[in-house]
Amino acid sequence: MVDKTLKELQIQVDKWCNTFTPAYFPPLSIMAQIQEESGELAKEINDRYGGRVKKSGEDTKDIGAELCDLFFAMVCMANSHNINLSEAWDKTIGPRFERDKDRYNKIPDN
Amino acid sequence: MVDKTLKELQIQVDKWCNTFTPAYFPPLSIMAQIQEESGELAKEINDRYGGRVKKSGEDTKDIGAELCDLFFAMVCMANSHNINLSEAWDKTIGPRFERDKDRYNKIPDN
Amino acid sequence: MVDKTLKELQIQVDKWCNTFTPAYFPPLSIMAQIQEESGELAKEINDRYGGRVKKSGEDTKDIGAELCDLFFAMVCMANSHNINLSEAWDKTIGPRFERDKDRYNKIPDN
Amino acid sequence: MVDKTLKELQIQVDKWCNTFTPAYFPPLSIMAQIQEESGELAKEINDRYGGRVKKSGEDTKDIGAELCDLFFAMVCMANSHNINLSEAWDKTIGPRFERDKDRYNKIPDN
Repeated sequence: MVDKTLKELQIQVDKWCNTFTPAYFPPLSIMAQIQEESGELAKEINDRYGGRVKKSGEDTKDIGAELCDLFFAMVCMANSHNINLSEAWDKTIGPRFERDKDRYNKIPDN
Repeated sequence: MVDKTLKELQIQVDKWCNTFTPAYFPPLSIMAQIQEESGELAKEINDRYGGRVKKSGEDTKDIGAELCDLFFAMVCMANSHNINLSEAWDKTIGPRFERDKDRYNKIPDN
Repeated sequence: MVDKTLKELQIQVDKWCNTFTPAYFPPLSIMAQIQEESGELAKEINDRYGGRVKKSGEDTKDIGAELCDLFFAMVCMANSHNINLSEAWDKTIGPRFERDKDRYNKIPDN
Repeated sequence: MVDKTLKELQIQVDKWCNTFTPAYFPPLSIMAQIQEESGELAKEINDRYGGRVKKSGEDTKDIGAELCDLFFAMVCMANSHNINLSEAWDKTIGPRFERDKDRYNKIPDN
């Protein structure tokens, strides 16, 4: 069964990271990793939807895999700050949905 | 109970996005949003751990909230590509753990 | 006359940074600043060409100003590594033009 | 003589881009390229100053070259918006120096 909770993901990453010392890089180093992975995602998106053309010999990467590489780095940032992502999500997403409820073009009620 | 599965998060975001038309921005636009949110996270990390000094009147933001803003944009990218993040995670993280198992400094077995 | 050389820019930034101590942030901190500024540029580009809609009260920023904010952080990175950007440009751009000369859609000769 | 002005750089890039059609990618595509190049710079900085460890077989890249790859994409953004970077710099950097003159730790006067 693949449908993991955020907590399960955080524990899975934490166990793996704790086979190394230090378990987590310093925050500015994790931040650079987030930027690196975000850049790799941008490259793939730009190949598919923008003007980017692959260099000869360059492989196509999976969007889902690039998203997960980026998410892995974010879970490391959360873990190293003792942030529970499910709690943070609930606290963040509600106010965001409320703030933005009239920000974009609504589907008419009809 | 707050511990959501990735699938539940994807459905929650999808329902909300489908109150608008279009439900999702084009991929390069979501990508720019990912970059914007990643930049806001970088600002907060740099304020805490780097040389950045807040401008006068600038608020401190929550790291957990910034991570979730970034994750929200990533869920939009996944949803608009019909990517199941739990499946993508399982396919990505196993090979990553295997590839990197000797990449960093191991804790000695004792 | 405003047409500055890269060297003049580097000296201008260096003089200003040397009124502070330390003159330059550590590299990972400058990197986070580059990411922050790149995110602000992405926000403005997304406002104009993508799906992003300004929050109420949010100002429109100048693309040129955002590019220069980003370039300022890059000049700090170059200066703190004693990199001469004009030399680096000449060394980088020639091989790049050569490598990519058939990568995109050429304008026909005649 | 290598010390180029910003205008000379912009013209050099414009000439090269105009051997292709279209000369410039759409703005959101150039933005993704900026993010890709900024991610490559982050990777190199993180290798040198953070916790990142090269994958086996991965090459070390030059910081100056990575900065110029990023700057190239920014010059494309400027050119495709008819932005004169020297003028933009002068308009941006003065107010920035003024705004931030007491933001960081000053070197004492004597």
